Amino acid sequence: MTLTIYGDSISGNCLKVKWTADRLGLAYEWVEVNVVAGATRTPEFRALNPAAQVPTMVLPDGRTLAQSNAIIVHLAEGSSLIPTDSYWRAKMFEWLFWEQYSHEPYIAVRRYQIRYLHKPETDLDPRLMQGGEAALARMQAWLAASPFLVNGALTLADICLVAYTRVAHEGGFDLTQYPAVRDWVKRVDGELGLDPL
Amino acid sequence: MTLTIYGDSISGNCLKVKWTADRLGLAYEWVEVNVVAGATRTPEFRALNPAAQVPTMVLPDGRTLAQSNAIIVHLAEGSSLIPTDSYWRAKMFEWLFWEQYSHEPYIAVRRYQIRYLHKPETDLDPRLMQGGEAALARMQAWLAASPFLVNGALTLADICLVAYTRVAHEGGFDLTQYPAVRDWVKRVDGELGLDPL
Repeated sequence: MTLTIYGDSISGNCLKVKWTADRLGLAYEWVEVNVVAGATRTPEFRALNPAAQVPTMVLPDGRTLAQSNAIIVHLAEGSSLIPTDSYWRAKMFEWLFWEQYSHEPYIAVRRYQIRYLHKPETDLDPRLMQGGEAALARMQAWLAASPFLVNGALTLADICLVAYTRVAHEGGFDLTQYPAVRDWVKRVDGELGLDPL
Repeated sequence: MTLTIYGDSISGNCLKVKWTADRLGLAYEWVEVNVVAGATRTPEFRALNPAAQVPTMVLPDGRTLAQSNAIIVHLAEGSSLIPTDSYWRAKMFEWLFWEQYSHEPYIAVRRYQIRYLHKPETDLDPRLMQGGEAALARMQAWLAASPFLVNGALTLADICLVAYTRVAHEGGFDLTQYPAVRDWVKRVDGELGLDPL
């Protein structure tokens, strides 16, 4: 038995897990789950994760783990993707929690509503653009002086935040307004071997 | 120099940090910051935390740390509040990330709007009640079979989730509908030495 990752390839939360596993050279089986088509809401999937969310990871012993950031922390334990210095490790966690509260609910949600639910932009909650721009401005301020988010080297914070930042334009955000963020996306894409978007 | 915690005593996110520090017997200075009165938006406070949020912690060496769950993880490293087993530690993180995404934005926000912004209930977004009830139902299902959230013993997951669950009634949620959650609140309150609400 190996690791099994249930994920939807359109979801940044799921791709974080894939990229972390790939960076670490871990063997895993990827099971594609189409969220828009309702594949997370079947009885079979709910038996794996009652919260009906992807990513969901099944460990070789059959136990399950959910929440993208909890999964990548688990996969990366003991690797260079998590700083060994306790202060920098804490700052990495600061970015991970900030991403789920202050970035994903705006940038990922606006992208999902436009690109996958096909909502017209005029029907979108204006707070999605405001919150997303505030998140990008915070990243711009930080990345103008630092090549990566934590202590000058690639960590889970970069993998986590790049997931929806690199596709922010699909949510109507203009990354040319945030040049340090745009440069950082290229840098992290290069580290992860991703094709530029 | 000691630890300094900038926090608002009405905020569950801030109280998590206080309770964790108290449980661990750490010395700290608590600086009360009144969010409703705008005290996080002053230039002095923004110099500490550009995101203008509490809690913010200043370490003895002057470096700062934000995000309640990142702070409690940092404080509790090496203590029994974080499981040593890697799977259970991952499940603890699963609850911490879930709290910030699926619990706090509904239960804490509804409470804040009612109790501190004095919004009439008819003006509240109905998704706040729906999301909060979904979060409580998930906790009820889990806690019906387990005294604490992770592996049968008190961890940061309980401290994190109890913060807004114990005051959920102030946000219009009826905990008598979730008896295992209500019993767990009493159990965690007892562990933390908190007066019952």
